Amino acid sequence: MKPFKVGLLGLGTVGTGVVRIVEGHQDDMKRQIGSSIEIEKILVQSKNKDRDIHIEPHKITDDPWDVIEDDNIDIIIEVMGGVELTKKYILAALEQGKHVITANKDLMAQHGHEILVKAEEYGCDVFYEASVAGGIPILRTIEEGLSSDRITKIMGIVNGTTNYILSKMSLEGASYEEVLEEAQKLGYAEADPTSDVGGFDAAYKMTILGTLGFHTYVSVEDVEIKGISEVSSDDIQYSSHLGYEIKLLGIAERQDDYIYLSVQPTLVKKSHPLANVNGVFNAVYVYGEAVGETMFYGPGAGEMPTATSVVADLIAVAKNSMLKVNGSRARTSSYKEKKLKPLNQVVYKNFIRLYVADKAGVLAQITQVFTKYEVSLESVVQQPNPELSAAEIIIVTHDANKESMGQVLKDFKEMDVIHEIKSVYRVEG
Amino acid sequence: MKPFKVGLLGLGTVGTGVVRIVEGHQDDMKRQIGSSIEIEKILVQSKNKDRDIHIEPHKITDDPWDVIEDDNIDIIIEVMGGVELTKKYILAALEQGKHVITANKDLMAQHGHEILVKAEEYGCDVFYEASVAGGIPILRTIEEGLSSDRITKIMGIVNGTTNYILSKMSLEGASYEEVLEEAQKLGYAEADPTSDVGGFDAAYKMTILGTLGFHTYVSVEDVEIKGISEVSSDDIQYSSHLGYEIKLLGIAERQDDYIYLSVQPTLVKKSHPLANVNGVFNAVYVYGEAVGETMFYGPGAGEMPTATSVVADLIAVAKNSMLKVNGSRARTSSYKEKKLKPLNQVVYKNFIRLYVADKAGVLAQITQVFTKYEVSLESVVQQPNPELSAAEIIIVTHDANKESMGQVLKDFKEMDVIHEIKSVYRVEG
Repeated sequence: MKPFKVGLLGLGTVGTGVVRIVEGHQDDMKRQIGSSIEIEKILVQSKNKDRDIHIEPHKITDDPWDVIEDDNIDIIIEVMGGVELTKKYILAALEQGKHVITANKDLMAQHGHEILVKAEEYGCDVFYEASVAGGIPILRTIEEGLSSDRITKIMGIVNGTTNYILSKMSLEGASYEEVLEEAQKLGYAEADPTSDVGGFDAAYKMTILGTLGFHTYVSVEDVEIKGISEVSSDDIQYSSHLGYEIKLLGIAERQDDYIYLSVQPTLVKKSHPLANVNGVFNAVYVYGEAVGETMFYGPGAGEMPTATSVVADLIAVAKNSMLKVNGSRARTSSYKEKKLKPLNQVVYKNFIRLYVADKAGVLAQITQVFTKYEVSLESVVQQPNPELSAAEIIIVTHDANKESMGQVLKDFKEMDVIHEIKSVYRVEG
Repeated sequence: MKPFKVGLLGLGTVGTGVVRIVEGHQDDMKRQIGSSIEIEKILVQSKNKDRDIHIEPHKITDDPWDVIEDDNIDIIIEVMGGVELTKKYILAALEQGKHVITANKDLMAQHGHEILVKAEEYGCDVFYEASVAGGIPILRTIEEGLSSDRITKIMGIVNGTTNYILSKMSLEGASYEEVLEEAQKLGYAEADPTSDVGGFDAAYKMTILGTLGFHTYVSVEDVEIKGISEVSSDDIQYSSHLGYEIKLLGIAERQDDYIYLSVQPTLVKKSHPLANVNGVFNAVYVYGEAVGETMFYGPGAGEMPTATSVVADLIAVAKNSMLKVNGSRARTSSYKEKKLKPLNQVVYKNFIRLYVADKAGVLAQITQVFTKYEVSLESVVQQPNPELSAAEIIIVTHDANKESMGQVLKDFKEMDVIHEIKSVYRVEG
């Protein structure tokens, strides 16, 4: 059998892992697909850079078109990152009849539809398992393992950096700033951490999960996003007393055909499987009408875990080629029209922490506001905060719709007895 | 498009769930496979039984050959259970060119090889996702999601009954007998619970997982089995003090090409993801050389979860039919020769609880035995047990090979100062 020839765009962390697995697991792959896989050409930024792995010099190029237009190459693996230029390369590769595997969440979240339509047109495969939750085969699980079910909720810890920070804050009582600095030193957070701590990275991943789970093209603009930079150790402590951990959860939910997606710090009951996912690990919890609760846990990033997903895609493309059924997975035409849930139908519990004047009657005034907008309360704790010569009130509501909650908070802002609305978080489980 | 015609063997709990999903999710399935799925005939034990669902009478038969030999039927779903007769039916169906989906772990663990060879011969699909861990798509995950990796260890909580019993004993401090009785009343345990509590059900499932994960035909006879009936609330309490939960774990491990499989009560560190899997839930932890730790969690049984897996298989068969690639999954010829690990290479930590004479020098005698066989100890706790006018010793060893541990226990049995070897369990994590 003729070997499959692969062109690699990018030789950073993940690209290096891909080369290691492809070279190290030849026998295992041959057993599965009956043929070997060879990396034919690799696009790099600088040809003369020192590398951890040996690559024959003639395979290295700094011209993307050397790879994309090489007639020997059957499959392009894109692990270079970036959006606009990368999209151009991928579309060009598809037009040449090359199958594409990408680990690029930004690209797939923003231009997935266009890429999949192009793939369909040219009879090519596009796989992107590594774009969400690194080593966890969650896209395949949603598309195939749970294909018979109606998924109504996907909740994901899909950003390792923020989960590391929140876990560490919870375990050690440290402040956000301290832990972020430590995470930056350890390489778990970027020098500019905005994409992670701001929730944007998670939002791209939830866009992809929502699209696959609900069979409609979700855009990142549909995702309500709130990062973790305002989560304080006080929030974590109070939540813990109430029996919750705070996690940055991406949530995609569906009711009938109406969807709502958000990424926000969320209180999760300690007995919930997501509450015990710590450090840089990722987990995706999927609720299906028939199957009920499932959760998929594993490493969300890293050279070898991410490369595992890329090479699993490579094996899938190679199997499809052996069976001559490439391009059969994309079903862009069968997707449904997108319908977003109106805010008065987005319903969940809330955790609210307020600094209020320490005098009689304040609690009554506050609870009246909840009553006015028909939000009922699960628990209320009031305690003095001597440092601030104020009182602190911690409230957990019952299920309340977002519109009503918005009105409650608007009223709160105009009340003299409320000095500050410290925190408002979603509560799950 | 001509609809796919399905014959159902069995209309118990899972069969009923399959009918519900197939009938309820027609639109979703049509969107995925471009065609509808119809249940054409159903084999039942008694035609006149009252049922929770309405079935048109002409579809019901009590003659299996009415289903197996019906030329209109493309796909047989077997959810009747049993081994010898069922195997006969399935082989006959394959010989008629019908694809087969089964939820039957006993059958696939014992005769999987023969069935898959027959399927290959006749170009048919055989899928059996529901046979292990109900609603968790673990077989697909091992075969596809982790196809690029070398799996070295699979640890599963794959029996809901025993996990319910052990979780309840741990949470409530109740005795094994009390909880078993309660589980029987609730329908979580059978009147004759041997298959579950004896570890046999889990062993069949580990046989299937080991076969898929290690690409070699594992037999249930290769699995060392120890059930949970001797686990006492004392064991659970002592383990808890040491930071462990006791779970009935199926473990399949591989070193180079040598494998070892067991099902036994195992101490799992409380911080390990498996330790927090409670009640009737199942979870399968998979360790791959490249991906590292992953875990897949969900309902291990029940009408709708199990039916979800069966119907996901149905959609997979239908997709293969559309693409005309049925029978392409079985790769019986590529499996490797089975090599079992010799016992002196099976290495793990042990928890040992002894009743010993309460006098000077006993601990020294005991530790000498460990030294003799080169087993080193992680922790030793000795305490008086006034009820027995004896002392109790709890030992956790470092990693020790099974052969040496066997010799230690053999020597213990001959020592007068040791009244009883109360418990010996594997320790993980």
